[in-house]
Amino acid sequence: MNITIVTKPHDRLASALSEEMAAVDRLIRARMHSDHAPRIPEITAHLVEAGGKRLRPMLTLAAAKLSGYQGEHHIGLATAVEFIHTATLLHDDVVDESEKRRGRPTANLLWDNKSSVLVGDYLFSRSFQLMVETGSLRVLEILSNASATISEGEVLQMTAATDLRTDESVYLQVVRGKTAALFSAATEAGGVIAQASETEVKALFDYGDALGIAFQIADDLLDYQGDSSATGKNVGDDFRERKLTLPVIKAVAKATPEEHAFWKRTIEKGQQEDGDLDQALALMAKYDTLTATRRDAEAWAKKAQAALTALPDHEIRDMLHDLSAYVVSRLS
Amino acid sequence: MNITIVTKPHDRLASALSEEMAAVDRLIRARMHSDHAPRIPEITAHLVEAGGKRLRPMLTLAAAKLSGYQGEHHIGLATAVEFIHTATLLHDDVVDESEKRRGRPTANLLWDNKSSVLVGDYLFSRSFQLMVETGSLRVLEILSNASATISEGEVLQMTAATDLRTDESVYLQVVRGKTAALFSAATEAGGVIAQASETEVKALFDYGDALGIAFQIADDLLDYQGDSSATGKNVGDDFRERKLTLPVIKAVAKATPEEHAFWKRTIEKGQQEDGDLDQALALMAKYDTLTATRRDAEAWAKKAQAALTALPDHEIRDMLHDLSAYVVSRLS
Repeated sequence: MNITIVTKPHDRLASALSEEMAAVDRLIRARMHSDHAPRIPEITAHLVEAGGKRLRPMLTLAAAKLSGYQGEHHIGLATAVEFIHTATLLHDDVVDESEKRRGRPTANLLWDNKSSVLVGDYLFSRSFQLMVETGSLRVLEILSNASATISEGEVLQMTAATDLRTDESVYLQVVRGKTAALFSAATEAGGVIAQASETEVKALFDYGDALGIAFQIADDLLDYQGDSSATGKNVGDDFRERKLTLPVIKAVAKATPEEHAFWKRTIEKGQQEDGDLDQALALMAKYDTLTATRRDAEAWAKKAQAALTALPDHEIRDMLHDLSAYVVSRLS
Repeated sequence: MNITIVTKPHDRLASALSEEMAAVDRLIRARMHSDHAPRIPEITAHLVEAGGKRLRPMLTLAAAKLSGYQGEHHIGLATAVEFIHTATLLHDDVVDESEKRRGRPTANLLWDNKSSVLVGDYLFSRSFQLMVETGSLRVLEILSNASATISEGEVLQMTAATDLRTDESVYLQVVRGKTAALFSAATEAGGVIAQASETEVKALFDYGDALGIAFQIADDLLDYQGDSSATGKNVGDDFRERKLTLPVIKAVAKATPEEHAFWKRTIEKGQQEDGDLDQALALMAKYDTLTATRRDAEAWAKKAQAALTALPDHEIRDMLHDLSAYVVSRLS
């Protein structure tokens, strides 16, 4: 007898959906192939084999299963969701000139910007082909809307990230774009494909939206308090990259004129010196913004859990509940 | 009385479709807008105001009108086609690091790679939103397939363009990807939206495909024989950029070992010296490849005209006929 002790909600979901996830994996491999351009699978394989958590397609599968879906279209839909995610990672790599992604060199260092842009476009097109195969115009509507929101969020972030006038509402808009839009589309579309009731579809959207926001706020908080061996990033990367995130936005809102000048110099003008990160952390401590940020993440996790109450009683629903709790449990 | 002498078939089409083109123009302006990210219309306006010929949306409108369409969805569809085109231009600008596009500095010099990638993604998403509004899954299928073919063609071009093993069949595949796929999707989708018969839809596809190929071969030929004041490019840009196109592919196919070494040095290795372009032109003249290339373009134009015979007798059909003739008439 093979006893596995599974604790993390993500792993429990993966286990409950293991057949479907395996089917998604096969479809990802089949559809990233290109007869005409062999370089395409070379690049996508790099990303696909690196794996990642496949959280987004899992949310689609979970939403469909929870809604009692019996068909086969959820596999193609979940694959489409993962392709959109992978395409945005490829384009982000170009954009940010980031050097690492999932602990490996990014595609644009191994190949070049050219390949990252075009292969991202290819996956994006493949994703829409997969959606067409589901035969659901509503699925196409949900995911084309999400894709537009994602690009808008990324463009907004370009200008907002180094602008001290960026307040919590602009931050939320950026977070909805860069993270929550695909989470909520993944869960909503999973319900739609299963022909869930409108109330349930709405609840699935709300769950994905709140989970995505909690997830991103947690990520931004961990940047300032994380253990670099666990996150693979260094504390304060966002500060060094001049990215205004919630812990700093809260400190800027309360800043004295002198403190404001500090933020202006380090974030807006990007003139950073030794000791500036310590000073930034001290200002966040002064106003206890890391705690306030954690409370915000927890509130969004609660919102996600509240949305679930409109959904059928199901083991998957319990796992989704635990997943939202887990996202913020890393923070305390 | 206002008498305008209209001669070019493109202008005659624009005149016959002037109301529809004006509606497309309005929709382009409305949909390139973003409430959340004001930088988006800044960048798209740059491209949209530069204008361009709007040939692709015009082909969609022409196909729909020729097929007797009475509805309103052709406007959104034509706008979707133009957005896909604009998105690929934005992404090409990143990719090729080209400095000029339509005679203006490219977006990636005025802004940056970041904006070009993200705004291209935004327009691509907007395009799918517009297609969803047509309510036709088949339109979505045609254009998502075309989009995948476009990216595959561009990726293939990256590896094939400097590889002397690239023969005419690979060249054709690249040309179908980078140019003909969107032409044929534009005409095919125009017929589909008008519920034309399958025979007519097939004929519209074949017309767009052959027109696109003739158009691109003509473009590649003009690079070696064009008048730079008319094309806005210098003779031999493709040679300098080490892009294998049909006139050179035909010369490589007939090359002596010594000539092959010349092509290997200049195209594959990119070691170019003064006088190399003259030598390249001399080799093309030796095998008369410019004439052979022109004949190929003319043959594709004839193919486009042959496809039109399956379509209803209509003034638009005559204009499409003349358009295909015009594309290659520039060459003699």
